[in-house]
Amino acid sequence: MDISQSGFSSPEGVEDSFYAAFSNCDSKAMEILWADDEVICVHPGSQGIVGYEAVMRSWAYILDGAEMPAIQVNVVKRTVSDTLAVHVVEEHISTGESSSAVMLATNVYRKYDAHWLMVEHHASVSQMQAEAHTLQ
Amino acid sequence: MDISQSGFSSPEGVEDSFYAAFSNCDSKAMEILWADDEVICVHPGSQGIVGYEAVMRSWAYILDGAEMPAIQVNVVKRTVSDTLAVHVVEEHISTGESSSAVMLATNVYRKYDAHWLMVEHHASVSQMQAEAHTLQ
Repeated sequence: MDISQSGFSSPEGVEDSFYAAFSNCDSKAMEILWADDEVICVHPGSQGIVGYEAVMRSWAYILDGAEMPAIQVNVVKRTVSDTLAVHVVEEHISTGESSSAVMLATNVYRKYDAHWLMVEHHASVSQMQAEAHTLQ
Repeated sequence: MDISQSGFSSPEGVEDSFYAAFSNCDSKAMEILWADDEVICVHPGSQGIVGYEAVMRSWAYILDGAEMPAIQVNVVKRTVSDTLAVHVVEEHISTGESSSAVMLATNVYRKYDAHWLMVEHHASVSQMQAEAHTLQ
């Protein structure tokens, strides 16, 4: 990945693109917003995945061919320095009408030269809800 | 809390004190290493707790009177700027001989004037193991 090709001028820009890629099940879009570095991703209930290639494989496994979820993101807290930003967000994720979950995620962004890229995503289940289908 | 009373000159110093307080079940020691600010704590499987007072109540609830766990911490990754540090660590936690778990935690530290304090702890279960006691 050529970092200079990425045009994220703010952590918020990376975050918007991250959730767009996630909700569109677009693993190719996911590839351009992570730093090509020792990034780390913790999917809910899993061990940490370290390194750009391994993290991209995990997203391709999750997203490719999956049903596109609806994701609503509420920012809980942002902590920012000149070159590092930590966002804690609630992810309200629903797939079809049958299930929904609330995840808590810590997203970390780092500034490389003029551009921001994602370096960590740590998500954990905050609340899970599965509704049975009925005919009425 | 008077931040100036705290003497943590590095994120590592805060982290060492955090895990000492955790493993000693010492909620009073926990009180002096968090920033008196809109801090956030995500205990495994729970929703985010926001604000110094609420976070301290959660630690008192967890630690006061509890059996002291053995905690081994392995640093997975540190990402640091001048005033913000993000550490991802594996916490190997065991209580007695009956159960052990591996948690993945993102710990965030912020520099206030000359001193570092904790502003976020986000822990999630990575691996859980419970061993049945036998007589042999």
